Order: sequence, then C-alpha cells, then structure tokens
Amino acid sequence: MDPKLEELKSRLQEANDIGAAGALLNWDQSTYMPPGGAAARARQSAILGRLAHEKLTDPAIGHLLDELRPLEESLPYDDDNASLIRVSRRQYERRTKVPAAFMGQFLSHSAETYTVWTQARPENNFALVQPYLEKTLDMSRRLADFFPGYEHIADPLIDFSDYGMKASTVRVVFAELREQLTPIVQAIAAQPPADDACLHRTFPQAQQTAFFEPVIRAFGYDFERGRCDVSPHPFTTGFSIGDVRITVRYKENDLSEALFSAMHEAGHAMYEQGCNPAYEALPIAGGTSSGVHESQSRLWENVVGRSRGFWTHYYPQLQAVFPAQLGDVPLDTFYRAINKVQPSLIRTDADEVTYNLHVMLRFDFELALLEGALAVRDLPEAWRARFKADLGIAPPDDRDGALQDVHWYGGLIGGAFQGYTLGNILSAQFYQCALDAHPEIPAEVAQGKFDTLHGWLKDNIYVHGSKYTAPELIERVTGGPLRVEPYIAYLRNKYGELYEL
Amino acid sequence: MDPKLEELKSRLQEANDIGAAGALLNWDQSTYMPPGGAAARARQSAILGRLAHEKLTDPAIGHLLDELRPLEESLPYDDDNASLIRVSRRQYERRTKVPAAFMGQFLSHSAETYTVWTQARPENNFALVQPYLEKTLDMSRRLADFFPGYEHIADPLIDFSDYGMKASTVRVVFAELREQLTPIVQAIAAQPPADDACLHRTFPQAQQTAFFEPVIRAFGYDFERGRCDVSPHPFTTGFSIGDVRITVRYKENDLSEALFSAMHEAGHAMYEQGCNPAYEALPIAGGTSSGVHESQSRLWENVVGRSRGFWTHYYPQLQAVFPAQLGDVPLDTFYRAINKVQPSLIRTDADEVTYNLHVMLRFDFELALLEGALAVRDLPEAWRARFKADLGIAPPDDRDGALQDVHWYGGLIGGAFQGYTLGNILSAQFYQCALDAHPEIPAEVAQGKFDTLHGWLKDNIYVHGSKYTAPELIERVTGGPLRVEPYIAYLRNKYGELYEL
Repeated sequence: MDPKLEELKSRLQEANDIGAAGALLNWDQSTYMPPGGAAARARQSAILGRLAHEKLTDPAIGHLLDELRPLEESLPYDDDNASLIRVSRRQYERRTKVPAAFMGQFLSHSAETYTVWTQARPENNFALVQPYLEKTLDMSRRLADFFPGYEHIADPLIDFSDYGMKASTVRVVFAELREQLTPIVQAIAAQPPADDACLHRTFPQAQQTAFFEPVIRAFGYDFERGRCDVSPHPFTTGFSIGDVRITVRYKENDLSEALFSAMHEAGHAMYEQGCNPAYEALPIAGGTSSGVHESQSRLWENVVGRSRGFWTHYYPQLQAVFPAQLGDVPLDTFYRAINKVQPSLIRTDADEVTYNLHVMLRFDFELALLEGALAVRDLPEAWRARFKADLGIAPPDDRDGALQDVHWYGGLIGGAFQGYTLGNILSAQFYQCALDAHPEIPAEVAQGKFDTLHGWLKDNIYVHGSKYTAPELIERVTGGPLRVEPYIAYLRNKYGELYEL
Repeated sequence: MDPKLEELKSRLQEANDIGAAGALLNWDQSTYMPPGGAAARARQSAILGRLAHEKLTDPAIGHLLDELRPLEESLPYDDDNASLIRVSRRQYERRTKVPAAFMGQFLSHSAETYTVWTQARPENNFALVQPYLEKTLDMSRRLADFFPGYEHIADPLIDFSDYGMKASTVRVVFAELREQLTPIVQAIAAQPPADDACLHRTFPQAQQTAFFEPVIRAFGYDFERGRCDVSPHPFTTGFSIGDVRITVRYKENDLSEALFSAMHEAGHAMYEQGCNPAYEALPIAGGTSSGVHESQSRLWENVVGRSRGFWTHYYPQLQAVFPAQLGDVPLDTFYRAINKVQPSLIRTDADEVTYNLHVMLRFDFELALLEGALAVRDLPEAWRARFKADLGIAPPDDRDGALQDVHWYGGLIGGAFQGYTLGNILSAQFYQCALDAHPEIPAEVAQGKFDTLHGWLKDNIYVHGSKYTAPELIERVTGGPLRVEPYIAYLRNKYGELYEL
C-alpha cells in the first residue's frame, strides 16, 4: 500500500481508538458507573475528547490528504481507498474550518445554557432561558458562516448530521409530507382512540428481556459483537465493528417501552455491526447520516416490529411469557394497542403517525430562526399556533412546548431534528426496494424469519458504512432521490386497515 | 498556589485521567465486553497506555520538578505538596531512566513469552518456554541495571511494586518466617484434615451475593463509590477515589470462592476509597505498595473474615440464607472448614498458613536466578526439592510446579511475589496496633460492627495514599520496622485453638 495512505490510516485509526475509549466512558457512565465516579468521569471524557480532536486536526493529516489527491483521482469514485480519502478530507475540512477558540466558547455556552434549561423547564420559565437561546442562535449563525458558499444558512449545520441534505430539499419533502399527513391525523383523531390498557398491566423486567432478546437476535443483532444493558435513556454506541452495544429502559407498567426500544436500538446497531470489516476504525465505518441511521432503527421497530405479520408469529410467544397479563387479550386488540394513534404533546412519546408532525415543526422553526423570520422571544407563541394547526391540540404551557427538547438547549439551532423524519420516510422507501427485490419478505416475517431482509439491508446499506453520502446511497439503493410516496403509501395501507381514512 | 506546582498537578492529573480511562477499558474487558470487541480493545488500550506514558515522561515535568525543588525543601517532609513533588520525582525518574526502546522490546518479549507459556503449561513442557524465560531473566537484569547503585540486583525490581523494601531486608524477614512456619505446617499436616464438605454443597449465586454484599458494606466498602461485578479472576480497580470497583468469581459448589474474594477485594478497595480526596488523580493517591495493599485485603479477608468472632455474629445470617445447605452444620464445623490447613500444590488455592511458603520459595528463586546462583534450566528440579522440604509434598509435574504462575511468563523475574507475604505479615502487625489503640475491636467484630476498625485503618493508613513509602508508613503506624512476631503470634493463637501445635 502507498506509504502515505498507510500513514493516513494509522493516524485516523489512532484518533478513532481514542474516541472509542471516550465512547466507553460514556457508555459506562450511563449503565454501571456509581454516583461517586461522576466528577472524575467528566475530566476523563474531556481529556480524551481533546486528544482525539487534536489528532484529527493535526496539520499532518491535511498534508497527507493533499499528497494523496493524485492517488484518489486515479481511482474509481467508489473505490474504498478513494472513498476513505474523500470522506476524511470532508471531515478534516469541517473540523479545521472552525477555530478551536470559537468551538471552546460554543461548548462552554452550551453547557451553561443546558444548566439554565434544567431550571427553566420545570419552572415553565421560557424568559429565563431566552437570552441564552438568543446567543445560541447567534453562535449557530456564526458557526454556519465558517462554511461560506452555502445556499441556505442551515445547510452547513444540517451537514453535521445529514451531509448533503440541503434545507431546500428537506423543506420541499417535509411540506409534501405535512400536507398528506395532517388530514390522516385529523381523520384518526376524530375516531375513538384504540384501547391500549393491555400494555399497561404489570410486566416484570426479567420476562420482558426473555422475550425481546431472542427477537432482536432473530432480526440479526449479533450478541457476540454486542450486548444489551439498562440506562436512563435508550441508546446505541459502538467501540468497533465487533462491539456495538445497545441499552433499553424498562417500565414494568408499559410493555412497549423496552420492547420497541430494543428493536429500535438493534436497528441502529445492526447497521454498525454490518459495516465492511475492512473499514474498522476508519472514518468510512459507521452510519452515513442521522437520517439513514434512523431509517434502520425505524424499519425494524415500526415497519417490521409493529406489523401484523410479525405479531402473527410472535404474539403466541409473548402470551406464553405473560399468560396472566395477555392470555385473555386477542391478537387484534394487542395489534391495535401497539399502533394506537393519538395527538399528544411530547415528541418522544408520540406514535408513528403523529411523530413526524412534531419533528417537522421543529425543523421549520430552526429555519425561520436562522433566517431571522422568527425571533426567539416569539417561539413559544409560534409553537402553540403551529401545534394547534398540525395536531389539533396545543400545549397548555412552554414546559411541554418550546422548552420540551434538550437539543437546542444543549447544542445548535439547526440540523438537530430533520434526521428523525428523514429516517421515517427512508425506512419505507428502503423497505419497498427490499420488497421489490424479495417479494417473499412479508411472508417470511410472518414466520419469524428475517434473514432475507437483514441480508438485503446488509448488502445494500450496512456494508457501505459511510463511504457514500446519504443522497448518494439513496440514489444507489433506490435508483432515485428521497421520495415521500412509499412512506405515505405505507401509512395509508397500515392505518387504513385500522381506522377509516 | 505556586503556578509551577499548579502546572505540575495539572499535567499529572491529565496523565492520570488518561490512565484511568485505560483502566476502564480493562475493567470492561474483564466484565462486560462481548468477544467481538477484543481486537479493537487491544488497540484502544495500547494507544491510551502510550499517551499516558508520553505525558508522564514529558521533559516539561522534569523541568517543573527541578524548579520546584526549593519549594519542596522549604516545606515539612510530610506536607502534602512536598510529598507530591517527592513522589512524582521518584516516579518520573523511574520512568525516564528506562529507554522507551528497551521497554518496547521487553513488552513485546513478555507478550510472546506469555503466548508460549499458555501452550507450555497444559503440555507440561518447561523446555518449550525455557529459552524465553532465559531471555526474560536477562532482560530483568538489564532493566535493573538502568538503576545503578543498588545493593542487590533485585532491589530496583522490588522497588517497582514495594518501593524501599530491599532484598536483604525481605530475605531476613522471610527466613525468620519460614523457620517458624514450617514446623507449624508440619504439625498440622500430621493431624487429620478438617472436614470442609459443608462448603461444597450447592450455593446459588444470587443468594451468595445477597449474603456478602451487606457484609462488605458493613466493613465500610462504599457502594456509592464502587460496585461489584463478575469476572474470570477477582480484582480491584479504580478510576478515581470516588469510583473503586471490585469483581468476584462465583463457584456454586464452593461457598468460599466469592465470599472471601469479596472480602479480600473490598479490603483493597476500601484502602483506595479512603484516600484523602485532596489527592484525587495525583501520584500520591492510591496504595503505597503491593505489600501494604495486600495487608489491607488480607486483614479483612483473614484476620476479620475468617475469625471466630465474625462468624459468631454472621453465621446465623448465613444459615438463614442457606437453610438447606447449612441448617445442619454447627458453627464450629463451619469455622474449622473455612480455616482448613492442608499442604497443596497451587498457590492461589492455598490456605492462610501454607500460602506464605508458596510465596517465599518463589521469592528466593527470583533472587537466586537474578544472582546467577540458579540457572533457568534447573528451576523445575529446584522447585520440587524446595517444595518437598517446605510443604512435605512435591508437584508431580512442572505444570503445577515451575510453570504454575503467570507472573514470570508475562512480566519480570524479580519483585513479583514478595508483596503477598509482606501483606500477610503486615495485616497482623497493623491489626495489633489497631487493637492496642482500641481493645474493644474484637468484641465489636463479634457484634458485626466494624466502624472502629475501619476508622482506625482509614485514619492511619488509607488517608495517606502513597504519600509515605511502605517502610515510612510502617514506622509511622507501628513505631518500628516490619516485624514477623505479630503474624506468628496471630497464627499460633488462631491455629493453636484448632490444631495441636
């Protein structure tokens, strides 16, 4: 191998390995760390973060990338080495364009804002955090300006999580989705809500695990290269392609909680586990964007895990694990319960259908704030108005309105939310492609078999890691750009059977 | 504070924090890591180890230590800052005297030797590993020679784990102990062995934990600043004064295994937890030597945990947890079972009395090998002869003889073993001092109360971290040097009641 390419890989892997150690510090902090470890853990995480950043922004990497340009240009675009150089250059430029001093100020402002928000939200006191959020908006704009030449000021910020997904594209896609979704939500809201009392009986933790672990193993999550633990909020984290872990949170009076979290996180984790092993510890390993990542979690959680076919096979097993709780509950009642649609105030508790309305209003507010079309002080009122228009209800206070999510109060305004809904849209678009290639998949799912689906996802999506950008990958897999139709068709088909639409 | 002292602390804490992250990588590897994580974990550990070493040997630290000499000399010897500078200088000199290239060669030779040993031991093939061990001996000598001016060639190697404990001192102490111990062992071996069948019934893991966790909590182990997990070999590890964790290994057919390991590791962990919080992340935090560390684990495991007083209080509780297994076993039978003395081949399985004979023969072999008085090829035969002389039995093969312990096959020859027996000796010497100060301790132990003992250990030993060397600490606590008599008196008293001596 070219010695300069060898050196580039070695430097990038070293930085990655420091970052992976930092990720383990975080995993431990959320799973097993005793309370007394917190102060030292903050120091340990900070130093590893700084060391990884130093290694990744070392000018030596910039020189190597310059020297490797002829090699890159001599290779096909989708060659692994060409892709490595290309993706590494993109990341290097992104990291080095922002002055370290600015990033330091921004992180310290975020930390301060977060602390104020933890007080403001319970107090329902938007005014308290408003000046901080105004500064966040100002700093978000300044951050975007380190990447001149953008089409929309949100584009550089969207690039951080969904590279290549421009505000203009997402706006068009979301406008179309919203237009089609609001009448569906309103039609469902006018009908009696499904009865989900069966999910709120008492489900001991150990039996919940005994049910869902074999399910996600059957999906294709590899427990030899991962594990499932308990944490306050479910998440997926990886320290290598061979060690991608998930966590869940149990509620003994809510069967949905751990069960669907496990499927969701297993979807994220299988994406990471399925990456080409040759990309180990390199920037082309791991998922390519937050939207594509979310498409994999939502595909397994919703398209598969909340489907009638899946439960036709698994519901008798679930009843066998919980005979007292579910023995008297027919499959149809259970199926309606897990797919209950009802407008609600909190995004993270929202059902599959209304969820996107929560996301899209946040995305639109981000653009309006960045453009200057909406002032921070007007956000609470704008939130209530838009919520009423889209979901037919309005939050009685800011606590469950503009103060709801941590994202803006612990990070940027811009790029924070679009990935959730892009993921939902893509989950259906990718699944449709899998069906086109393998029409037998639904019948297999209804027999508890997932090999064909998992294999197709692995070969077409997982294996590529982040070699392709999300738009490139979508084009490659589906033969065209991101499209709303398959998702709308999926929702109409599924919920048309459950409700009158 | 002096800005140079501030800078020294900041540099040392940073290096410590990187090392602590490395320690978490190791903890995770032994407790929760899935098999697929192994390859990446080796890389992650290596890079953190290298970064910590680079920080600790940065010439800037040497300059700071030089510049801080006037400050150090202006302060009392036992001032915290003077001690920090003194201990840091000692460690800095030790780290910088050995060329990095030599350490690299040594570590790579050790790794190779370890791999060969994992094959040689099951095959009972000493000849296979002999040339590797000869090179280890040669490199151990060369390592010692980076520290000229020693009295005995083993001294610099002993300094790595038991700073200030010279070969000559240890040799005299061990000779005295051996002279007094062998007749005791022989007297006991001539009597019928205790019946320990009651420990080998079936003890489900969950109940074992339910019994021992409250015990070590009562000792003073703080679960808010630690936790207990399962690993293939029990160990203690800390990431800060606020996060010191232990592990145990369960055997359902051996009640002793997890129970006494938990007490042992809790002893190590309480030492680390009890350090002055002002020493957080500094070289003066943590135990001062392997011998003093072992004294704390053995004190809680043996002097307390295998005492009649302790079980007078706790045995009814143990019987309540295991009514079917122990309901018919009288306290006296149980007490004799946990204190069964019988010469055996394997060090790690040995009882409290014979254990030291295992350790001392290894220590003597280390000195003889380093001196050139014993050749590596003659080690297996020398092992059998010495074993027969000291324990009255001889290993039938090298697998359970000279090939038994990993220490020489994964590290140095020299300094590897003395700490175990120094710890046993010190456990009795320290405990005697605690009794002199608080004669009520045995009565309290017999009521399940450990506050007075724990408090005395904390104030006199734990709190000092490694501010004092082991010889300094012993002098300070006991008013004199390391002495064998209290340990022999303890053994004669305890085992004189159980056997005819």
